[in-house]
Amino acid sequence: MTTSNTGTGDMDPGVRQELERLRDSIDNIDAAVVHLLAERFKATQQVGRLKAVHQLPPADPGREARQIERLRRLAENAKLDPAFAEKFLNFIIAEVIRHHERIAEDTANAQSADD
Amino acid sequence: MTTSNTGTGDMDPGVRQELERLRDSIDNIDAAVVHLLAERFKATQQVGRLKAVHQLPPADPGREARQIERLRRLAENAKLDPAFAEKFLNFIIAEVIRHHERIAEDTANAQSADD
Repeated sequence: MTTSNTGTGDMDPGVRQELERLRDSIDNIDAAVVHLLAERFKATQQVGRLKAVHQLPPADPGREARQIERLRRLAENAKLDPAFAEKFLNFIIAEVIRHHERIAEDTANAQSADD
Repeated sequence: MTTSNTGTGDMDPGVRQELERLRDSIDNIDAAVVHLLAERFKATQQVGRLKAVHQLPPADPGREARQIERLRRLAENAKLDPAFAEKFLNFIIAEVIRHHERIAEDTANAQSADD
């Protein structure tokens, strides 16, 4: 019987090496995703400003439904759980709507300051 | 005074075009992120199998603390809210731990079936 390990200290060197190899890939992917999300928020900030200036509502349910549908399809092709892809997009959209509401408030304040 | 729009139907063509340009970029970024997350889960599934076979615990608080610290730093350099990057990683890790627990159960079941 094998005793249960609580850390990597008493791990077989081969296993540890394999774990490190996988973790290095995970870290590389995370760095790529963080940079892509930074780009994504740059784009959504621009959308937010455009919506605020033209007094469009922050949320757009039709657009969101199309995004979810598309991402679920892409996820399936990539063998990623489509339910997770949808949860992920909702997580991002919640953050975007928070940004947009803040931009709308700031724009309204700036406009009333101009009156 | 501008009346508030509820959709894109009555939008100025220039504004609509700019919105479409930004949304196309957002959709491209989302497709890239979904494919990266699919790769990430492939790697974490392998980690999960490795941990299950060698009876290592699914969660690893030391590794998670280092990941959060690193992602917050990367986020800051990329001008992404570090608090959001941390929330994002926790969101992903919660999903990974769910996967690992499932793999550990399946492995335990397979091992007891071998007895």
